[in-house]
Amino acid sequence: MEPTRADARDNRARILEVAEDVFARGGSAASTEEVARLAGVGIATVFRHFPTKRALLEAVLVKHFDHLCERARGLADSDEPGPAFFEFFGHLVDDAAGKLAIIEAFTDAGGDAEGQAGRRPRELREAVGVLLVRAQEAGAVRADVRLEEVYALLVGVARAGAHLQLDAHVRARTVGIVFDGLAARERDERRPVQ
Amino acid sequence: MEPTRADARDNRARILEVAEDVFARGGSAASTEEVARLAGVGIATVFRHFPTKRALLEAVLVKHFDHLCERARGLADSDEPGPAFFEFFGHLVDDAAGKLAIIEAFTDAGGDAEGQAGRRPRELREAVGVLLVRAQEAGAVRADVRLEEVYALLVGVARAGAHLQLDAHVRARTVGIVFDGLAARERDERRPVQ
Repeated sequence: MEPTRADARDNRARILEVAEDVFARGGSAASTEEVARLAGVGIATVFRHFPTKRALLEAVLVKHFDHLCERARGLADSDEPGPAFFEFFGHLVDDAAGKLAIIEAFTDAGGDAEGQAGRRPRELREAVGVLLVRAQEAGAVRADVRLEEVYALLVGVARAGAHLQLDAHVRARTVGIVFDGLAARERDERRPVQ
Repeated sequence: MEPTRADARDNRARILEVAEDVFARGGSAASTEEVARLAGVGIATVFRHFPTKRALLEAVLVKHFDHLCERARGLADSDEPGPAFFEFFGHLVDDAAGKLAIIEAFTDAGGDAEGQAGRRPRELREAVGVLLVRAQEAGAVRADVRLEEVYALLVGVARAGAHLQLDAHVRARTVGIVFDGLAARERDERRPVQ
């Protein structure tokens, strides 16, 4: 029985990996059939592991967020908290279009944002908070900035990038302006009071 | 006949004004019936001026964008181009949740983004471009920033504000960080190269 179980595990992992890529590119328009074809398995095999499209998308989302959280936690131990924070911010922005497409597909398939996958964004936000505090302690990010604003900027640049279909160059320049705002240590007197 | 025509013009203006408010708050869930009731006219009067919900929403959107463009053009003559630019950026962000709700209702009603209302966002973008150039000439905004990035930041903060339902205070702090990034005149050496 052992090889069969190992095969099943391999199949499940391959299906998930292919599904992540297919739905990140295609969103709601992508199909489970396409996933099966590209994973080199029959549609029955996909449904044996994931009884519904929604179940498949939930597993893809959980995997995607877990991977992001893992990366954030890895960076939290960095000797250079400033670059670690900015690197992860940039990574989340670059990752956003695919992630938003998967979330859209999940929601369109009747996915429950409060279910298993719903907890993940909160964990990611907390992981960003840890990187922020460390970057602030290192003097790389302004001390008067709070996670609320940083998260709003993250979500904002990510959504603008996806909505306006910004190319990587414009996205990087936009992120650069935000980084300057976060790193600025002198207040500009000409800036209107908020 | 003259008073009747004037009445009709008054009715049309009142319906539009009420509809702007109703759909900005309610989005797709808001109804033409509610607009008629709050405008103090019969539903038949609404449909005489706007044969479909889509036609009503298109007129609301055109009016909303025209008003924004008008305000931007008024600010373009300001003696203080820096504050004028930042004021309008902040105004667009504060206005965004309502505008996005109207756009959503228009799209859900089968509205064509490439129609009459579709030209308006481009005109608004151009008006922002004029304010940006003037603010840069006045030395209030970094010379190396382009309209593409400024517009991405505008769309981003606006969408984050609506999506995360940020309160006015967090929204203002988020906008403040962007302003610092736009106004920064020294590059921070610790910022990773884009």
